[in-house]
Amino acid sequence: MIKVSIIGSGNVAQHLIQAFQLNSQIELVQVVARDIKKVAHLLDSNRITSEYTQLQEADLYIIAVSDDAIAEVSSALPFENRLVAHTSGTVALDSLNSNNRRAVFYPLQSFSKDKPIDFKSVPICLEAENEKDVQILKQLAHSISNAFYEINSEQRKALHVAAVFVNNFVNYLYQMGNEICDANAIPFEILKPLIQETANKIATLSPKNAQTGPAKRNDLKTIAAHEEFLKDENQAAIYKLLTQSLQNNGKKL
Amino acid sequence: MIKVSIIGSGNVAQHLIQAFQLNSQIELVQVVARDIKKVAHLLDSNRITSEYTQLQEADLYIIAVSDDAIAEVSSALPFENRLVAHTSGTVALDSLNSNNRRAVFYPLQSFSKDKPIDFKSVPICLEAENEKDVQILKQLAHSISNAFYEINSEQRKALHVAAVFVNNFVNYLYQMGNEICDANAIPFEILKPLIQETANKIATLSPKNAQTGPAKRNDLKTIAAHEEFLKDENQAAIYKLLTQSLQNNGKKL
Repeated sequence: MIKVSIIGSGNVAQHLIQAFQLNSQIELVQVVARDIKKVAHLLDSNRITSEYTQLQEADLYIIAVSDDAIAEVSSALPFENRLVAHTSGTVALDSLNSNNRRAVFYPLQSFSKDKPIDFKSVPICLEAENEKDVQILKQLAHSISNAFYEINSEQRKALHVAAVFVNNFVNYLYQMGNEICDANAIPFEILKPLIQETANKIATLSPKNAQTGPAKRNDLKTIAAHEEFLKDENQAAIYKLLTQSLQNNGKKL
Repeated sequence: MIKVSIIGSGNVAQHLIQAFQLNSQIELVQVVARDIKKVAHLLDSNRITSEYTQLQEADLYIIAVSDDAIAEVSSALPFENRLVAHTSGTVALDSLNSNNRRAVFYPLQSFSKDKPIDFKSVPICLEAENEKDVQILKQLAHSISNAFYEINSEQRKALHVAAVFVNNFVNYLYQMGNEICDANAIPFEILKPLIQETANKIATLSPKNAQTGPAKRNDLKTIAAHEEFLKDENQAAIYKLLTQSLQNNGKKL
């Protein structure tokens, strides 16, 4: 049994609270929330506090607050030499106050407020300053997820950039597809199976091998027709850059 | 029972042959293939020919060949006033020879050579010159798929551009994610659940409402850190353009 407390009441904190509560190998000791109401529906009130001074002994304290607040919160903890992890993809391990043993417990997933997450499939990125603490993080990660990785702060920074490409930017391309459909009285539903299949394909093929389309096969006639079709400047600029980039990529092969 | 013949032996032709063969409501009369070997494993040899002159009576002839060959193939057909459809997302209906009743039967999906497709979930885009022919196309589409739509040539052009955004370009962003992982000794596996969740989200949320990330919330500090991190010119240019575009989008709201 591993004893964990969570500091924070936002999206990630709430998902972690739920995952830990359901797990027989984890004792969720306490949750610290400035606004107690935000987590009151998730656990008993005697385990919620808004005061750091009320924090009891635990094996691990997880700071799940916004990136900007991590350093400050870690400095406000009224104890020393305990294991303290943040959950951010962008903040370095050494942003945490060195009064405690510093660590990172970063679940790499896009958390929505109202959509439950099956943590089993969420990869957890772990980092700590010594091997004993890595083992504690692994034990916790293993209790809730099938996939965890030791990732240092430099790698985590790279991973977060990569996640922006495959999550934020990809979703934005979905939006462009949606806009083009709307402007032409086409139901966006039509594109959803294609979107799903595009994501499914890379389970078995590398993206490089899965690549198709006019840019990949250097089909200049279709590309010219598409560029003529796109009257929206923003869409046209994105089409042009991504097409050129894909074409150059082909040449470099 | 609807009688169909297919002209072509490529990727789309092969997937259609398999879908039609499995279906009790469809009689696949013949397949015309220049290279008979390419489809010999899919149906009896007495139903394969390389000669248009051998073509027997059918309710519908589907030309599933490369875009550039559609006009020529349609002009080579040795009969008149029969229903002839092509399967292309980019070619207009009137590119078909007007000797026959012209139509489009466009399955909107990314077909891979070795990956079987469940046609039930493939949207079929239909177009014909008169209502009676539309009904024949609908009957065929309904036999193999749960989703079919009447889409005119202008809309089909828009749809194909939209498909480039949500399929080709999205896959290319997966590739950038993969490259960033490789360059930093991170297994690309880590990103796959995020990629899957990003695609799953739009089943219930519009892409606009599903959008997250530093550009969306105008997190200039993270954006600056990412731009500094990206040394690859190509990746940096794409990051910059998509981020600016997302930021402007927010302002227009």
